[in-house]
Amino acid sequence: MKTSIATVTISGELPEKLEAIARAGFDGVEIFENDFLAFDGSPADVGKMARDLGLVITLFQPFRDFEGMPETLRGRTFDRAERKFDIMQELGTDMVLVCSNVSQAALGGIDRAAADFRELGERAAKRGLKVGYEALAWGRYVNDHRDAWEIVRRADHPNVGLILDSFHSLSRKIDINSIRSIPKEKIFIVQLADAPLIDMDLLYWSRHFRNMPGEGDLPVTEFTEAVASTGYDGFFSLEIFNDQFRGGSTRAIAADGHRSLIYLADQIRRKVETPIGAEMPDRAAVKGVGFIEFATDDEEAVELVGILEALGFRKVAVHRSKKVTLFQQGDIRIIINVDPLGFANATYAVHGTFAYAMALVVDDAAEAYARALALDAEPFAQAVAEGELQLPAIRGVGGGLIYLIDQKSPLGRFSEIDFETVAEEGGGEGAGLLQIDHIAQTVAYDEMLTWLLFYTSIFETHKTPVVDIIDPSGVVRSQVIESKAGTLRVTMNGAENRRTLAGHFIAEKFGSGIQHLAFSTNDIFATAARLRAKGFKFLPISANYYDDVEARFGLDPELTERLKAQNILYDRDEEGEYFQLYSGTFGEGFFFEVVERRGYRGYGAPNAIFRIAALKKQMRPEGLPRDAI
Amino acid sequence: MKTSIATVTISGELPEKLEAIARAGFDGVEIFENDFLAFDGSPADVGKMARDLGLVITLFQPFRDFEGMPETLRGRTFDRAERKFDIMQELGTDMVLVCSNVSQAALGGIDRAAADFRELGERAAKRGLKVGYEALAWGRYVNDHRDAWEIVRRADHPNVGLILDSFHSLSRKIDINSIRSIPKEKIFIVQLADAPLIDMDLLYWSRHFRNMPGEGDLPVTEFTEAVASTGYDGFFSLEIFNDQFRGGSTRAIAADGHRSLIYLADQIRRKVETPIGAEMPDRAAVKGVGFIEFATDDEEAVELVGILEALGFRKVAVHRSKKVTLFQQGDIRIIINVDPLGFANATYAVHGTFAYAMALVVDDAAEAYARALALDAEPFAQAVAEGELQLPAIRGVGGGLIYLIDQKSPLGRFSEIDFETVAEEGGGEGAGLLQIDHIAQTVAYDEMLTWLLFYTSIFETHKTPVVDIIDPSGVVRSQVIESKAGTLRVTMNGAENRRTLAGHFIAEKFGSGIQHLAFSTNDIFATAARLRAKGFKFLPISANYYDDVEARFGLDPELTERLKAQNILYDRDEEGEYFQLYSGTFGEGFFFEVVERRGYRGYGAPNAIFRIAALKKQMRPEGLPRDAI
Repeated sequence: MKTSIATVTISGELPEKLEAIARAGFDGVEIFENDFLAFDGSPADVGKMARDLGLVITLFQPFRDFEGMPETLRGRTFDRAERKFDIMQELGTDMVLVCSNVSQAALGGIDRAAADFRELGERAAKRGLKVGYEALAWGRYVNDHRDAWEIVRRADHPNVGLILDSFHSLSRKIDINSIRSIPKEKIFIVQLADAPLIDMDLLYWSRHFRNMPGEGDLPVTEFTEAVASTGYDGFFSLEIFNDQFRGGSTRAIAADGHRSLIYLADQIRRKVETPIGAEMPDRAAVKGVGFIEFATDDEEAVELVGILEALGFRKVAVHRSKKVTLFQQGDIRIIINVDPLGFANATYAVHGTFAYAMALVVDDAAEAYARALALDAEPFAQAVAEGELQLPAIRGVGGGLIYLIDQKSPLGRFSEIDFETVAEEGGGEGAGLLQIDHIAQTVAYDEMLTWLLFYTSIFETHKTPVVDIIDPSGVVRSQVIESKAGTLRVTMNGAENRRTLAGHFIAEKFGSGIQHLAFSTNDIFATAARLRAKGFKFLPISANYYDDVEARFGLDPELTERLKAQNILYDRDEEGEYFQLYSGTFGEGFFFEVVERRGYRGYGAPNAIFRIAALKKQMRPEGLPRDAI
Repeated sequence: MKTSIATVTISGELPEKLEAIARAGFDGVEIFENDFLAFDGSPADVGKMARDLGLVITLFQPFRDFEGMPETLRGRTFDRAERKFDIMQELGTDMVLVCSNVSQAALGGIDRAAADFRELGERAAKRGLKVGYEALAWGRYVNDHRDAWEIVRRADHPNVGLILDSFHSLSRKIDINSIRSIPKEKIFIVQLADAPLIDMDLLYWSRHFRNMPGEGDLPVTEFTEAVASTGYDGFFSLEIFNDQFRGGSTRAIAADGHRSLIYLADQIRRKVETPIGAEMPDRAAVKGVGFIEFATDDEEAVELVGILEALGFRKVAVHRSKKVTLFQQGDIRIIINVDPLGFANATYAVHGTFAYAMALVVDDAAEAYARALALDAEPFAQAVAEGELQLPAIRGVGGGLIYLIDQKSPLGRFSEIDFETVAEEGGGEGAGLLQIDHIAQTVAYDEMLTWLLFYTSIFETHKTPVVDIIDPSGVVRSQVIESKAGTLRVTMNGAENRRTLAGHFIAEKFGSGIQHLAFSTNDIFATAARLRAKGFKFLPISANYYDDVEARFGLDPELTERLKAQNILYDRDEEGEYFQLYSGTFGEGFFFEVVERRGYRGYGAPNAIFRIAALKKQMRPEGLPRDAI
């Protein structure tokens, strides 16, 4: 796929935008006029900058309010166009985007518009330029790509073509199959944007909410498939107006954009016979979480190990060459890394005790790794001792690591190869914990879409709708990424302010990361009893909660009493029941959860407010104002 | 007006919410159930807390999915209600809010609903409780207060009444006059919320965008007038779901809420014969800006005075007892305060050089001051020397001051009474500057509504629609407050992130405040020529801008050349033309502007992106990344 992005999509001044776009791997760039106007250099300077960075200028945009003007205004409109042609020639681009007229002065009429475009095409042709026409969703008369196409058809000029834009067509729910009958050479360029499905005024939605393909809810893949079916093999260009992107990291947003196009091309390649996408392995099906690794030091490890033991974990092995210990219970493996050398220690030095790495078990680790790199994931490797495994790894949320392991290669035996089994040190039976139910990552709000795209493009997962969690100090957005079978479940909580529990975690830990781990059990009451016997410190839940939950669900009072006695939270939906219990916090707000699912597929969102209130209460040192955390 | 607010409106945990609500001056509070449930205390504890703070608990809310349930669910629904009645009695409140059923299981039917309410009324009466019924705008069958009223009428029980909510009625554009025929004793309580007019899904709009009466665009005043016309004299209670409020300062949002109700009551009092509002003077008509005062020190004053002189200002007077100097040109007075004692100096110590005070000329300063205090403005006074004036003052944006002066009292002669005229020190003629055209204040985004309400409730001003300003590093929201005659014009720029020019100003200056002052002239070209002669440093504007502005407006190339030569920006709308020129920045981003209006009423928003790019370029030290400011 020939990739391009409009400068308006990302933040910054023109030179830094171009630099970030080139660095992200795009082939081309659309110059958004205001970015150029605000820049203190000539069009030729901009053109040189782009070419020096290896970027084609795919488009100069937008040229507004052109077609169908009354005679009195028509002349000036063409004069304006000639001025823009001057700039384009200096810039070194051959195409201008003309968006459909929104002016009150416009007359409409497709033959009038076609005549205007024929003349503009003639003028453009003299200079070797091309004119692309795009139907804005809120154009005064033309707001449907089918009408724009009819105008282009009647203009009947080789230098006049159509510009398609997924947002403008999909936001109006226009039949996408209408694209399949357009000759490919008349499609001059294709712009792409996605958006969350929120029913609101089109222009407001467009200006503030658009996002990268795959980050929203529109059928952008189907749109692109229809385009590809015509044989179109030109540029696919991101044109995205989004307040968050405009205030975000220039480089990170550009990188997200590039990933979104690579992923899209891969999906199209599988549906249409087209050379658009590069060959790469399928999305990796995750079979489970191989381990979670904590970076810490000798001193803080004592508390952490204490909590793990109270949770029923047993130390099962020690690393052959590093100060690294493996704890296990059921299928759950927790690694504690206190080695003074290596990445874990460097992470600890910056963030404190931190669940900085996870291993995902996939079918074929080499293939998953190849796909991740094809999708711009950042590889990670560090020296290992002779005879030890080099686990393929990529950078994940907050600079943490995701190791990729499988059962078919020696990687699946990492705990035998790299570790030495230790004799059981008593400790007795576990607490019935079976698997990692979900991994809860806290991220800065403006990184949520980044990681959503990361997980869903590399791994065989899907997102569920965003849920608002009410923290006493603000709203936290929660987004779930999960595999169909539930073998990987990641909840991402996006924190906007530092006073929320999630925001506090990010601020204190200097970055996003795993804030809690939820383990599954088949019998929460039995597990709770064992935890109590082991001295596990339960998070105490307010008595008011139990009065309400009993009334709300019509629970048997005896069940309510059992829940209350063990500080177990309860939820229910059409699919079943859910039971949750929590530890107190450790360090800067890390905690553990134990859950039992009886058919339930959610994450207990209605209980979050009570859990947060309880955690905050526990974290608040006496005498400090409630605002302070 | 008996004032109340729902705990859900503000951020924090229950005790701090109650404290802030009492401190803001509310008479009552609605306990939102989740706030109570998350609190680790009994209903009796909550009731005692509220009463100790002098608050009546006006309502316990919400009780959901009650009326019109099928027989199989009906019994449990009443059981749930009885449990809530238990809590209410412990809390010490006599009213519960039942909102219209949204359950898929509900059957509908107003007689069925009426029968349910009659029975609930009977049960409530046994305990001395009351039931209020509210139509949610998205209720499954009942989503109109007229239908809710018909159900209450048919329930025909003294303990069952109607709850009106401005948001639910106005969002559905229900005829407000339908309220005027409801007997006042059947209206149990009235909830108020406003919202900006953005066309979107009702539930999404409601959950995220509501705001205080007067902060949005809904006809809340007309709604309240209709209620007052019934003779209703019960509580008016704010029930506002807003993400920004939920993440904002508990005390500040509560204070805004109280101000919004006092202001609303004052408007109603003037329209309906009702004892609802307390007597207070009219909104103060602002006749002009008396002066702007800078706090600085001897050293930094040198640069500031240099800029003022280059702008054509002359030193005209010195303060009799303080190190304070008055500069003047036309009707513009600028005071430079370098006195080592007093508030100005304290301000300077925290914020650096800063336009910390403005004086507004009103008809009657004493009346304006009285109104401001009635609307919860914070008074300010400091010691003055004998024989000098004590100017009435209130705290404004960022803790800065607003002095109130008039022509009818000695206040109008402050420059003669407190100051001593100095002999002209040469300096020659001015630059033709006449008046302060507008005062641009930069505020943290979440304070914008606070100051919008402040200005519009105290002074005879109105707001204009919010405009998005595109800063290279993010979107800045701009909101104008102006008087009809243009005698007071304040533009507020709300900054969300620190990398925008506005955000940088707030971060560096440790607070909101005046970021630029715009002076008017009748002849921008003559003024520009004089400024040039005086050595004024113009903000250089990119040549690209002039190419575009010429093409965009079809300007005479000769005019474009004149604009370009003087770095003058141009805008035009249906009402006329606008010319702007800027100084470079001073200190942490403060700057001056000169404007000429030829009928134009706006503020040159389309030019802001070019001005910001030019200012940022100037502020960026060589070698620093563009991100850094």
